[in-house]
Parts: sequence; C-alpha cells; structure tokens
Amino acid sequence: MAGQNGGLSYRDSGVDIDAKNQAFDLMKGYVRSTFGPQVLSDFGTFGPMFALGQAGSPLDQPVLVASADGVGTKLKIAFLLDRHDTVGIDLVNHCVNDILTTGAQPLFFLDYFATAKLQPETVAQVVSGLATACREAGCALLGGETAEMPGFYMSGEYDLAGFIVGLVERNKAINGASIRPGDIAIGLPSSGLHTNGYSLVRRLFGLTNDTPTADARRKLDTFFTDLDRTLGDELLIPHRSYLNALRPHLGRVKGLAHITGGGLIDNTPRVLPSDVAVHFHPRLWSRPPIFDIIQALGRIDEQEMCRAFNVGIGMVAIAAPEEVDALLNDLPDAVVIGEATARGDGAAVFID
Amino acid sequence: MAGQNGGLSYRDSGVDIDAKNQAFDLMKGYVRSTFGPQVLSDFGTFGPMFALGQAGSPLDQPVLVASADGVGTKLKIAFLLDRHDTVGIDLVNHCVNDILTTGAQPLFFLDYFATAKLQPETVAQVVSGLATACREAGCALLGGETAEMPGFYMSGEYDLAGFIVGLVERNKAINGASIRPGDIAIGLPSSGLHTNGYSLVRRLFGLTNDTPTADARRKLDTFFTDLDRTLGDELLIPHRSYLNALRPHLGRVKGLAHITGGGLIDNTPRVLPSDVAVHFHPRLWSRPPIFDIIQALGRIDEQEMCRAFNVGIGMVAIAAPEEVDALLNDLPDAVVIGEATARGDGAAVFID
Repeated sequence: MAGQNGGLSYRDSGVDIDAKNQAFDLMKGYVRSTFGPQVLSDFGTFGPMFALGQAGSPLDQPVLVASADGVGTKLKIAFLLDRHDTVGIDLVNHCVNDILTTGAQPLFFLDYFATAKLQPETVAQVVSGLATACREAGCALLGGETAEMPGFYMSGEYDLAGFIVGLVERNKAINGASIRPGDIAIGLPSSGLHTNGYSLVRRLFGLTNDTPTADARRKLDTFFTDLDRTLGDELLIPHRSYLNALRPHLGRVKGLAHITGGGLIDNTPRVLPSDVAVHFHPRLWSRPPIFDIIQALGRIDEQEMCRAFNVGIGMVAIAAPEEVDALLNDLPDAVVIGEATARGDGAAVFID
Repeated sequence: MAGQNGGLSYRDSGVDIDAKNQAFDLMKGYVRSTFGPQVLSDFGTFGPMFALGQAGSPLDQPVLVASADGVGTKLKIAFLLDRHDTVGIDLVNHCVNDILTTGAQPLFFLDYFATAKLQPETVAQVVSGLATACREAGCALLGGETAEMPGFYMSGEYDLAGFIVGLVERNKAINGASIRPGDIAIGLPSSGLHTNGYSLVRRLFGLTNDTPTADARRKLDTFFTDLDRTLGDELLIPHRSYLNALRPHLGRVKGLAHITGGGLIDNTPRVLPSDVAVHFHPRLWSRPPIFDIIQALGRIDEQEMCRAFNVGIGMVAIAAPEEVDALLNDLPDAVVIGEATARGDGAAVFID
C-alpha cells in the first residue's frame, strides 16, 4: 500500500503497524491475566509500573534479582512443528529458575519478540505460553517489545528473549558461601532437555537448516518407543520450573545451581566456595531415555554429555546433611546425587 | 574439534563455549565499570543482585518501572560499517527515555545479544556502548545473555535487545492524568533518527539485503553537504538520552512522551487523558536536514513522516503554562511546539 500521494509509506518498507495492533489485540487478554494488584499500569504503556511496597509496610533490605535469557535453537523445533505455545513456558521457567538460585520470588517478566514479518496469531500463541508460566510463578507479564525487522530473520522464524525481576530480603539470599565439605547435593529431575543442547541435537537428528523441511518434519513425527512419544513432542517438552517445589524449603538449602548450558560441570561451580568441590555419582539418578538416545547416536563422551546437557538433573540443591531427610521427604522426586568435598588444586566438579 | 573419542562435541554443532568465555573476558571490565555499591553480585552470576534499600532507610511507596526494547534495523547500518560501539548507546538511551516518561530513575539494565557465531571483539564493542550509556545514566549494567544460535542469524549479524528497571516514588510518578486544555507542549530535539524508521530509510537509500555490500558501503560513505557528514555517520548518531536534562525538572511536567515508532502521532496520545488532544505546529521547530532529505527522496507525505520518524523532536514534555518560562530557561534547546486542546470525537493529535 503506497502513501496517500503515491510516495513511500512505512508499510512499503515491510513494517506493518496494523499487524502490530492486531497482535496486541490478540495478546492483551493473556497479558492482563497475569496482572495482580501490584501492577499499576495497563497493557501498552511506555514504562509499565509495578508497586513494590505498600504504604505503612516498608520493606527492610529488599534486593532485586534479575536475569535475561533466550530460548535458543529450541525455537527451530517449534518453527518446524508450527507449535508456538510452549516456547514461552520454556523462557519464563528458565528465568524463574535462574533467580530462584538466590531465593528470589518472581515479581515481573518482560519479553522481546523479533521477527521479519509479524504474524499476529504466532505472537499471540507465544504470549499465551509466557502468560501460562507467569501465572504459575505468580509473576506479572508486565510488558515487552514486539519488533518487526525486515531482512533480519528467516521467513516464519523469530527470536524470543525474556527478562525477569524478583525479590529477596538480603538476609535470606542464598549464595552458596556456607557450603562445606560433607554437605549433600540433591538433584531435582529435569523434564527433558529444557532449553540446552539443541544445536547439537538438531545436527544429530538431521534437523538443521540444510535439511528439507518436509524431511525434518517427518523425523520429528517419528514415534520413539523408548520415549513413548514422537521425537518432536519430546524435544518441545517445556523447561520445568522449580519455584513452587522449592519455595517452602529455601531456608534449608545453602546453594542452588540451575543446570543450563555448561551442564553440571560448568554450572555447579558458580555457587561453590573456591575451596569446595562436588562429586556427582550418575548411578544415583535415572537418566531419561532421550539422553541415552542422543549419546549413542552421536557417540558423545560422558564429559561432553555433562557439559552440553542436563543429563536428567535440572536443579542441584546443596544442603547440610541434617537437612537432607526432610528435603527428600518434602520433595518427592528429589534424589541425593553427590556430596561436597574439599577442593585442592583440582577440578570443582567430578562425575563418576 | 571432535570429542575425545571421535564422537560429536558441542563445538561441532557450532556452539563454542571458549568463544563465549573469551567474550566474557573482553566485556567484564566494561560491565564492572557500571557497578555502584548497590550491585551485590559480580559479573556472571545466575541471578545478579541489586540492593534496593539500605537498612534503616526504608523506601515508602517504591514503584518499579520497566521497559524492554530492541535497536531494530539500525543494526544493519552498524553491520555494513562494521562499527559496533554505538548501538549499545542507542539501546540503553531508548530504554532510559521510556521509563523517564514516568519520572523513574534508572537502577539497572540487562541485555540480550544473539548471533549465529560469536565474535568476541564484536560483542565486546557492543557491550562497551551499553556500559558508556549506563554510566551516563547512573545505571548498573547488571547482567545479560549472550546467545550463540547457529542457523538463526546471517553471517556477521546479531540482534540486540535490552531491558531496564527504574524506580519512582508512587506519589511522584508522572502519568499525564492532570493534562488539561491550555497546557503547553515543549519539544526536546532529537539527535537524528534515533532508532526508528530504519527499514524505510534502508529501502529509500538502497541499503537493503538485496544491495551488494560494496555498493551499500559506498552509499554510506557518501558525504552529504546538507548533513555536514557522511550518510553512514548520520545514520549511526546515537539515540539521545533526556534523563540528565529533565531529571531536575520532573516535578514541573505533567506528561512526557518519548517519540519512538509511531512518531508524534501515535506516541503523544499514550500520555493524554481521553478528553484532551495536542496540536503541534511544525513551523515552531527546525527540522534537521536528514528528515528533509528522506521526505524528498521518498516523496513521503507529512502524516506518514510524522508516524515513521521523530521529525526532530525526541521527547515531548507537557506542562502548565506557568511552568513554561522556567522550563525553557533551564532546558536551553527546548522549544514550545504546540498546545493541549479539548478533544471532541476527533483525533488526539493534530499537526499543522
């Protein structure tokens, strides 16, 4: 559509403000479904507002905890299956778990959605997933940015990033500093790959950009007996949130490591004092079949598996031995997976 | 590089953890240069922490104000010129201005940087720009996500999004609700295109993906006498921040509109009561030559110009008539650009 005088209009350049307005109409119900009384602004303001305290009940030493994340190339699986209502859950739960490692409760979340040509129904599906996970976390989907960027993304594709802000009182913040040799590492099971290792998985199963779309879709529709579902269904299982499980027990753990890119090997040390190591014993937990399929297909060595994937453990909680029985009792699917030891000049993580 | 046993490694799939570590080494100095005493965590933690209050001096009714933004297709100009130290300034200042419309002071910022293959020097340049603007705004560059996503972005390209959190006391929040007919619209000059209209500009000057890179670079290196600089230099002028200029005067304005995508026409109504319109008079401000060049080249009609571009005004402040002299006195480059009137059933913005 040309401008009124036959000259160039913004729409001619590939940016369609009407499509954006249509997307906003489709998403605003989802967004508002996450609003509680602390949200002071409506959908679509310049700077959405969130009331932190109430008059007369001031906070003592509030600490804000923030995290930014993306979904990564798991998005490519969603594109191939044209299923867009789960990647928002992945993103929110990834962020929720990141700040949970400090003991923080989520306050609000914002998203960034960028695509070459805005498809209002697609972005609405994505936002529905964001809203589902935000409600589950008691977190407001406070705002975000929907960007139409011609020439940036492949047709039908998009990128999705998210930002979360949570709150913890300073004297309740968890930071791992008190972890000592003899403390116990408890693992909480992952729901699948979560959001890590997808570039490797796509290459392994022949799902990269070089694969004709029809072939890739056929592969994703293949039923795997070991998985009891199709490959596509397995690869789109949303990232699990550990917030509601761990929330009542945060006072009993010394450190929490969210097992994302880098796996047990790179993530666990992020919460350990410099003189403490952790020994994990893989025989102590059952590794979901997807990881065995991946390892066999790629002949991937064990160390590489434990850096590229969560290998079945999405969150590690480290606690004093006397807290372990109670934690295992209250967290039905938690298992002891290792123990803290003195770190010499060696590695911070051992897996054997 | 293959895994130890000849099997597939994560790096084989295009994700290079060492490049990420190298990027982190290059950027951490910039990041730490933005840290004040409120930042409780070091670079690289799961959930970076920011102390909101001090013990013994609790906040009364703190409201957090947040915004998410991208740089948009202005990034394509940076790619063509291989100049990556300004886009971070664009992004931070865009976010700073968004939350400034509520009167909020920035607390912290997080970024999301995504690329197909991580170039540590490029991401470090981007982060240097983010850090420059964060320091200027008194805002901590608290954290972010650097994502390597093979097959997502074109070679040498990246996307960049940002997220800011600021603070305003509830009784000092600016929301435009008290704007009445007779109030005056004051404009603060933009520094150039800021971050809007680039898809149109790229098409207009023949800088789209269809243009051979050498041709596009030659166009960007063309010196324009009217601009007194090359086209490339003009198009990369960073988005101006209005924070330090407006900070001392926030108590004297009733409403602030950040003029981004949608221009004066779509952004001004976002802060107006439903029964108030604003009349802008373009003869009252000088329009920088880049806008005249664009308008002539594309034969773009005036309404379209005022939706796609900021046409020289980056921030509109609306104030009672009795505040205007003092504001103009304290803001040397501010000009009266229009006035509030009663809105009937007509438009919320008139430009004539």
